[in-house]
Amino acid sequence: MKTNSEKIVRIAELDIDPAQIDAYLALLTEEIEASVEKEPGVLMLHAVSVKDAVEKVRILEVYANRQAYEVHIQTPHFLKYKTLTAGMVTSLNLVDVDPIVLAAK
Amino acid sequence: MKTNSEKIVRIAELDIDPAQIDAYLALLTEEIEASVEKEPGVLMLHAVSVKDAVEKVRILEVYANRQAYEVHIQTPHFLKYKTLTAGMVTSLNLVDVDPIVLAAK
Repeated sequence: MKTNSEKIVRIAELDIDPAQIDAYLALLTEEIEASVEKEPGVLMLHAVSVKDAVEKVRILEVYANRQAYEVHIQTPHFLKYKTLTAGMVTSLNLVDVDPIVLAAK
Repeated sequence: MKTNSEKIVRIAELDIDPAQIDAYLALLTEEIEASVEKEPGVLMLHAVSVKDAVEKVRILEVYANRQAYEVHIQTPHFLKYKTLTAGMVTSLNLVDVDPIVLAAK
C-alpha cells in the first residue's frame, strides 16, 4: 500500500482542441508556474508538446506525497485552470508511474 | 530549421523484456547518472516506469543542443548502456517534443 510519505509521480497525456491551443498553453503555463512557485509539495511539472502536433501535450508531474496532491487540486490557480480549460481538452489520460531515476542539472 | 543552439527535448518510450528488467534498470540508472554528472550538455534525464508495468519505461530527455546530443551518443557510458541493453529492449519509440514549460524545485 502506498504510504503517506511516498512521492506521487504521473504522466498526463492530453489532447487539446487545435482551435484553442494558444489559449490552452497560456492557461497551462500560468497554472504550472503558480503551482511550483507557491506550493511546497509540487516538486516538478514538466510540460511538453509533441513536435509538429502541438495539440498533443505531455506533462511529467511530481508531488511530495498524496496530501500535497490533494492540496494542489483545491488551489485557486488549479481550479481556474481546470474550469477554463474544460472545453479545450478533448482527451485526458493519467498514467501513474514510479520514478527510476530523476536526474537534472 | 532547428538552430544549433536549440535544446533537444524528447520522450523515449521503451518496452523491456520482463525477464531482464532488473538488469536493465541497473544499466539505465548507471548510464543516466554518468551522463548528467559528466556531460555539460546533458541537462535532464528523468526515467520512470508505468505503475504495475515496470517493463514500460518512459524517459524525458533534455540536451543543451544538437551537438551535445551527438557527443552524448558517442560517450563510453552511453555505448556501454546501448550495447549491453540491446537484447533487453523489445520496443523503442522516440518522440521528439517541444518544451512548453519545465518547472521544478
